[in-house]
Amino acid sequence: MSKKKIHNENEDLQILLQRAFYLLNRYKLVEGFVNLQGDSGQVLADSSVQKRNLDELQHFIDYLHPADIADILEALPLEDRLIIWNLVKTELDGEVLLEASDAVRETLITGMGINELLAATELLDADEIADLAPDLPREVIDDVFLSLPTAERERLREAMSYPEDAVGALMDFDVITIRENVRLEVVLRYLRRLDELPDHTDQLFVIDRNEHLKGVLLVSKLLVSDPDIKVSEVMTKEMITLHPDDNAQQAASAFERYDLVSTSIVDNNGKLQGRVTVNTVIDFIRDKADDKERNLAGLSEEEDLFSPVLKSVKNRWAWLAINLVTAFIASRVIGLFEDSIAQLVALAALMPIIAGIGGNSGNQTITMIVRGLALGQINTGSAKKIILKEIGVSVINGIIWGAVVGLFTFVIYQNAALGLIMMLAMALNLLLAALLGVLIPLTLRRLGRDPALGSSVMITAVTDSGGFFIFLGLATIFLL
Amino acid sequence: MSKKKIHNENEDLQILLQRAFYLLNRYKLVEGFVNLQGDSGQVLADSSVQKRNLDELQHFIDYLHPADIADILEALPLEDRLIIWNLVKTELDGEVLLEASDAVRETLITGMGINELLAATELLDADEIADLAPDLPREVIDDVFLSLPTAERERLREAMSYPEDAVGALMDFDVITIRENVRLEVVLRYLRRLDELPDHTDQLFVIDRNEHLKGVLLVSKLLVSDPDIKVSEVMTKEMITLHPDDNAQQAASAFERYDLVSTSIVDNNGKLQGRVTVNTVIDFIRDKADDKERNLAGLSEEEDLFSPVLKSVKNRWAWLAINLVTAFIASRVIGLFEDSIAQLVALAALMPIIAGIGGNSGNQTITMIVRGLALGQINTGSAKKIILKEIGVSVINGIIWGAVVGLFTFVIYQNAALGLIMMLAMALNLLLAALLGVLIPLTLRRLGRDPALGSSVMITAVTDSGGFFIFLGLATIFLL
Repeated sequence: MSKKKIHNENEDLQILLQRAFYLLNRYKLVEGFVNLQGDSGQVLADSSVQKRNLDELQHFIDYLHPADIADILEALPLEDRLIIWNLVKTELDGEVLLEASDAVRETLITGMGINELLAATELLDADEIADLAPDLPREVIDDVFLSLPTAERERLREAMSYPEDAVGALMDFDVITIRENVRLEVVLRYLRRLDELPDHTDQLFVIDRNEHLKGVLLVSKLLVSDPDIKVSEVMTKEMITLHPDDNAQQAASAFERYDLVSTSIVDNNGKLQGRVTVNTVIDFIRDKADDKERNLAGLSEEEDLFSPVLKSVKNRWAWLAINLVTAFIASRVIGLFEDSIAQLVALAALMPIIAGIGGNSGNQTITMIVRGLALGQINTGSAKKIILKEIGVSVINGIIWGAVVGLFTFVIYQNAALGLIMMLAMALNLLLAALLGVLIPLTLRRLGRDPALGSSVMITAVTDSGGFFIFLGLATIFLL
Repeated sequence: MSKKKIHNENEDLQILLQRAFYLLNRYKLVEGFVNLQGDSGQVLADSSVQKRNLDELQHFIDYLHPADIADILEALPLEDRLIIWNLVKTELDGEVLLEASDAVRETLITGMGINELLAATELLDADEIADLAPDLPREVIDDVFLSLPTAERERLREAMSYPEDAVGALMDFDVITIRENVRLEVVLRYLRRLDELPDHTDQLFVIDRNEHLKGVLLVSKLLVSDPDIKVSEVMTKEMITLHPDDNAQQAASAFERYDLVSTSIVDNNGKLQGRVTVNTVIDFIRDKADDKERNLAGLSEEEDLFSPVLKSVKNRWAWLAINLVTAFIASRVIGLFEDSIAQLVALAALMPIIAGIGGNSGNQTITMIVRGLALGQINTGSAKKIILKEIGVSVINGIIWGAVVGLFTFVIYQNAALGLIMMLAMALNLLLAALLGVLIPLTLRRLGRDPALGSSVMITAVTDSGGFFIFLGLATIFLL
């Protein structure tokens, strides 16, 4: 960690990146020159110029925090990324891999040999190795496993046994445990015998001889209390505990609500298993927010800015395919009314307005409902009130926007009846959007599915096809 | 904080909510009965039944953490919300208000008298009062201000002077400061004279007599070091410091990258102003993620699930209006080709496919680029590579999806030429989507605007109008 001031958004990273680009380009320029020169150039490559370039690049990288190296690697095209990656010191490799996104991590690991990967992982803790494990070749995992002491092996096995969204996957085994019948003086002397405390140690865990958690001694309490009193007198017995199978989302919410720095994980029998710390929780929250953002646009997490074209195509195709199917359906709905359109071609120009605004309005409702569900704010008692509210909003919007589009239509086409049909169709499609904007996510939730996934596609499909049907249907009945 | 296990997502909140609904309904049932009975019912209202109902409700609320009370209030319709709110103990009012969302906070404050608000705020710290200030009536702020001791007044004035997105707005003044020339033993004795340490005290700030920050003494270092050595020997001089005017987003990123629990805020002269703690940062991250999600659907933060209909309409209208304008433009683009559609009505049924998939694909690109910009991963050196990549993706997608829609068209309409036009139009619109999907956010950024706001509307407008124009234009030239 370096002493520095942070001025405005990403300025630091931008400065680091500029420096990286500058050094890289100077290095690559000479390298390219060497390749042009062929054999005689080889002399130049060993020359002092290129050596100095490489030294400067090396010096620049050696000075960086692993999180910053990871960020720079994320922002570099593949070729440059690998040049920098090869210059990172082996002892930092593991930490940089941990900090990198899944897509970038994969590009880094692909270029590494078994021995390099072994060297990178063997310096990590069991819980960190478990985080990397899904991206490592099978044989590396096996070798790493064999190289660990027995206790660490058990931890690795345990950490790897939890699904990504379980608290167990966020678990850190590095805890300090004490007994309740000793004086604080003894605790202080015990701590002084350690070289350092685990990161984020804001509490010591009080266990009995069976490793059952009896309470926690807050470090802040330890510091303000008389050293002569016993742990049992100042320890906190009322504390939040998590279970390894708990949902990680729920743990994140507990950290947020109760302002935690760390919390214990105990098994069904109350035996202390490990802890979760706030830095892991922040990373989890950030990852989830990232996932959500990408899911909304149909991107999986496997793509970085510089992913190869074919990989990106693969990453994005499913979403486009689903939307294409809904577009085909909407197209066939319009196809039903081709005779009507042939008679009054203005319908073709007007129908996307009804469908589009219905989609926008439906997505506003969906966003409110999905958010309410995620925060646990909606239950059967309040669902009816919410539906009534959304219907109310859609009726008022229907009147306002219906009048606007009706007027627009009248001004353009000088056709009052067509204007009235537009108005009516708009109001009905907004009502449809409101109803299904509430019902789609609630139904998905009841079916045990994540309402955040798919709700938006479904509402857009409904308001497109539904909007075309309502508008063209009304026009066919009343105008033709 | 209660001792409890957390099982699965929001289960706890759901249980609390169910209990709240149960108690509320029982209470309201009797209350309604009383109103029916008129005067004679008054006797019943004072009866032991209703008293017990109220007692149970009171007991239930008294047991809750302020964060949980706030969550329950969020999930209750307005009427129920105010019943519960009136039962919350005055000394918790301020903390609950701090935890509530802006929209719900507003509904709570609206019903409170000046004296109640004064009582609620006077127990808060200056930085907390500053957080509430925008929602409080002017006279309450003035009265609170006068009731504070001078030092707190200065802090409140300072905290209120920073914009919402500055580090100063996250500042907490509760810091422990020490001198560098004392022994750790002295520090430990000094701490023992305190009743408690400020929350999230993971470091003590080492200052000179002019309050300039010289370094920090990590609590974990204090605990493992020999009490006889001096602060100056174990303090950390290389630390992250923030400035009150720094961007809060950047501070959040520093906490995430460097796994901080707290960090100091110093002014331009190196004088210690306060600190930022991780719990504030988590709240900030969550708020920002929330804002982003709502912005995407055109919702402001002023709406909660049970907001009155008119308020919700107001909250959502601007987005719908913008989209309506783009829909009108698209409608006029189609209007240009009404003669073509009259001649070949299949065009009307096919055109939404081209526009829709173009919009989806463009939004995928926008999401990648906006995210890359937010993380500072894109600069002039890499922009060209990214444009080339997106063009590559769109060309391949154009070939694949162009072929699919071409085939679809041929199957439905038995018209090979029309199928070829669909294929070509699809490929061209995807190319347009890719180009502008990169250029729109980059241009917004260059103009100093937030690319996350508006990029999505703009790309959809372009792919709609552009898609209609490309498809109908090609059809007019080659088919008619």
